[in-house]
Amino acid sequence: MRRKTFLLIVVAIVVGVVAFMSPASPHAAQEAAPIFVTDIPPGYRDWRLISVAHEEGNLNSLGAILGNDVAIKTYREGKLPFPDGAIIAALHYRHVSSEENNKVFGRAQSFVPGPPTNVQFMVKDSKKYASTGGWGFGHFNSDGKPVDDAFMKTCFPCHQKMNERDLVFTRYAP
Amino acid sequence: MRRKTFLLIVVAIVVGVVAFMSPASPHAAQEAAPIFVTDIPPGYRDWRLISVAHEEGNLNSLGAILGNDVAIKTYREGKLPFPDGAIIAALHYRHVSSEENNKVFGRAQSFVPGPPTNVQFMVKDSKKYASTGGWGFGHFNSDGKPVDDAFMKTCFPCHQKMNERDLVFTRYAP
Repeated sequence: MRRKTFLLIVVAIVVGVVAFMSPASPHAAQEAAPIFVTDIPPGYRDWRLISVAHEEGNLNSLGAILGNDVAIKTYREGKLPFPDGAIIAALHYRHVSSEENNKVFGRAQSFVPGPPTNVQFMVKDSKKYASTGGWGFGHFNSDGKPVDDAFMKTCFPCHQKMNERDLVFTRYAP
Repeated sequence: MRRKTFLLIVVAIVVGVVAFMSPASPHAAQEAAPIFVTDIPPGYRDWRLISVAHEEGNLNSLGAILGNDVAIKTYREGKLPFPDGAIIAALHYRHVSSEENNKVFGRAQSFVPGPPTNVQFMVKDSKKYASTGGWGFGHFNSDGKPVDDAFMKTCFPCHQKMNERDLVFTRYAP
């Protein structure tokens, strides 16, 4: 009886250890699928400025990149990676010629934000978004609705190329 | 004697009234000379976003327009004119192509802020800046130094053309 009890304990320990170490548990498999940001972070329009951006071509976009306090602090201290809690927002508008400004200036030189096109977010949460470098990606069209997963799956492969900058394209504008 | 006293009083009143009404008193003449903003308002880099701007041509500039709390409140409420205390800052950078972004995107489409060129301010103080529509104008090059008065005198005549918007070019980006 003593020997049987001992064996049972050994088997129980081995099963426990294997279960703990296994990367193939149903729970772990679920975590490996990319998760996207589905809610717009509140108050982002009041965040501080990181930088601005202009994209030509199909995007034809003029944008502002804002950061919450955690993101701004990280940028200013220059210490990567961004800690959990950092959020970066990219507000995009159509890049349009300003007729009213050009009239005053006397030449066609001024471009301003036209209609808003979308707002994108990067939310750092190293556990929740472990499968995409610790960043959750979000893209909301001007109607406030998130885009579909097929579109969202294109974010990480591209951002991953900026690995030495913790997947973030935007540099801080002084 | 009575008649002399009466005449003296009348003369005194007339002189007083003329002095009061005269726009050519030395004091009034002093106030009519434009006054410019000579110190950079502290903390402006932490202000909230009003909009972004892209200027082609000689300016070749990418910029962010920020506002202090008074300015942001006025913009959001849409009630002109701006009250005293409102300050608008325009942070300008060279508009440069981002080689590192283009490499990732696989095409030349991305423009970002290059070296900072200048920071401009509009400070609302209806008494101090009465001769320039209640706005004080400031322009500081990237070395932090204000530009000369000859340059500064060109601000108001141009901004004045935006009279229906209280002399401010920039509209609020939603």
